Amino acid sequence: MKQISIAEVGPRDGFQNISEYIPLEEKLRIIDAILASGVQHMQITSFVSPKAIPQMKDARDLSKICLERYGDRQLYALVPNYRGAQTAWDVGIRRVSYVVSLSESHNRANINRTHEQSLQELHTIRTALPDLEVVLDLATAFGCPFEGEKHADEVVAFLAPYEQRGIAAVNLCDTIGIAHPAQVRRAIEAVQREYPTLPIHLHIHDTRNMGMVNTLAGIEMGVQSVQSTLGGLGGCPYAPGASGNLATEDLVYMLNRMGYDTGIDTNALIAAARLQAQLVPQGKFSGHLYTIQEGNTHE
Amino acid sequence: MKQISIAEVGPRDGFQNISEYIPLEEKLRIIDAILASGVQHMQITSFVSPKAIPQMKDARDLSKICLERYGDRQLYALVPNYRGAQTAWDVGIRRVSYVVSLSESHNRANINRTHEQSLQELHTIRTALPDLEVVLDLATAFGCPFEGEKHADEVVAFLAPYEQRGIAAVNLCDTIGIAHPAQVRRAIEAVQREYPTLPIHLHIHDTRNMGMVNTLAGIEMGVQSVQSTLGGLGGCPYAPGASGNLATEDLVYMLNRMGYDTGIDTNALIAAARLQAQLVPQGKFSGHLYTIQEGNTHE
Repeated sequence: MKQISIAEVGPRDGFQNISEYIPLEEKLRIIDAILASGVQHMQITSFVSPKAIPQMKDARDLSKICLERYGDRQLYALVPNYRGAQTAWDVGIRRVSYVVSLSESHNRANINRTHEQSLQELHTIRTALPDLEVVLDLATAFGCPFEGEKHADEVVAFLAPYEQRGIAAVNLCDTIGIAHPAQVRRAIEAVQREYPTLPIHLHIHDTRNMGMVNTLAGIEMGVQSVQSTLGGLGGCPYAPGASGNLATEDLVYMLNRMGYDTGIDTNALIAAARLQAQLVPQGKFSGHLYTIQEGNTHE
Repeated sequence: MKQISIAEVGPRDGFQNISEYIPLEEKLRIIDAILASGVQHMQITSFVSPKAIPQMKDARDLSKICLERYGDRQLYALVPNYRGAQTAWDVGIRRVSYVVSLSESHNRANINRTHEQSLQELHTIRTALPDLEVVLDLATAFGCPFEGEKHADEVVAFLAPYEQRGIAAVNLCDTIGIAHPAQVRRAIEAVQREYPTLPIHLHIHDTRNMGMVNTLAGIEMGVQSVQSTLGGLGGCPYAPGASGNLATEDLVYMLNRMGYDTGIDTNALIAAARLQAQLVPQGKFSGHLYTIQEGNTHE
């Protein structure tokens, strides 16, 4: 059986879309339920300004508790800058996602930096924290609300200085859910050709119903890890009313049935998604499986 | 550009799930809007007992009007038996979908026939109406709520006497939305190997979020036509709360962006889906695109 790593990013990318603060204890209950299903990789929070994203104000406490409870799992956090990376390191996080947008206008809108400034910041992080693993989260890797479609050659050219400065992987992020399978294949093929030793991850949104098909396209091209959120929690701010993330339980169900070794139990994950829907009723969920009858997964 | 035929089956598979009667004029407005987008193939109704499915009681009138208005399109109907086929022929329909379930227990539950009786009925249709094109709609081709998963060798064995009696195509139907891409590929490969001249169609439900991924898997294996419903209208009776069909506009969007020649305009289809949601507000829709901002398809 072919192994595939599924990284749950709901506690970051899902929760950050909920304006009302979710109490730490409830977050932990959801995280516990997800990890109980067998999930090995989880982005548990982000170290960002609490003014920018108040939902993440408990990042330190949450990280400490999770690292203590789950020393056997790979728990990581998103950081937009050196300051976040330093705080993450100080609480014990050893791998971060460092986010930069392929589109410079989106980079300015999202983290208020030019491309040059983002690259300089990575240099600062790598110099100050040489043992911190940094995954480059390349936002808008397939398209941008301001700049339109992004092509594989732009991805390849952009990566060169990042790859030189030492990144653990590149995570191609379809921030606005605009990619299609042919584009996903082209981008991955181009990155593999130019950087054969660089691990590739994939973060696909389901905005236009292409979450499953794009993620499978990536897996069949050989990406090492794919990201999703429990229940599909999270929305895309540029597409009101639309679903946002791909639901982890739907993805796991498909891959398990196709014969992949995900190490995750679908029914336990569905139970976690139902718990989450109870605790975060204001969330926007796009998963299919947790809405259907118990035991109807036919797994 | 590779051509692919997308057959809209919402006026049959979508409408039949609406218990409240949709007035003929409203049905026609939706059909007009769909065909205005460039759709060439449509299953417009079914010739069934009005006691069993009252929604289809206007099958004759609807067919006559549509055939008169759209002589340039391929309009067809679903029939469960010779009687329906004869009525369809009499009003001018020249192609029907004849439905049989691969699972005999589902065949009994759905159309109250044994497999032997279903085969005999096809013989009657082919004999009485030799010029009527018959597509075999093979329901539960991938799995059955009563009998579980169905395998490719069962499909191949089942098809033999149907292929001998002369069918225009086989339509592999994932009635309960249980198929996965590896299974879709195996089934199509097996049918292609055994019946190399038999056209294969695919009807995938989106119950478990695998509508897009399974349909694309089929297209990339070379199926000639795929079915879907506008807005994803239609539900699966075995999975309450779950979405049913794959949404045509989502499918068309993906294929157009991948460079396929569908001949269909996505934005016109989205407009049709919005009209349908107004006229059939009690419907269960699963499409993504028609819920997002106008002009946000990035096509």
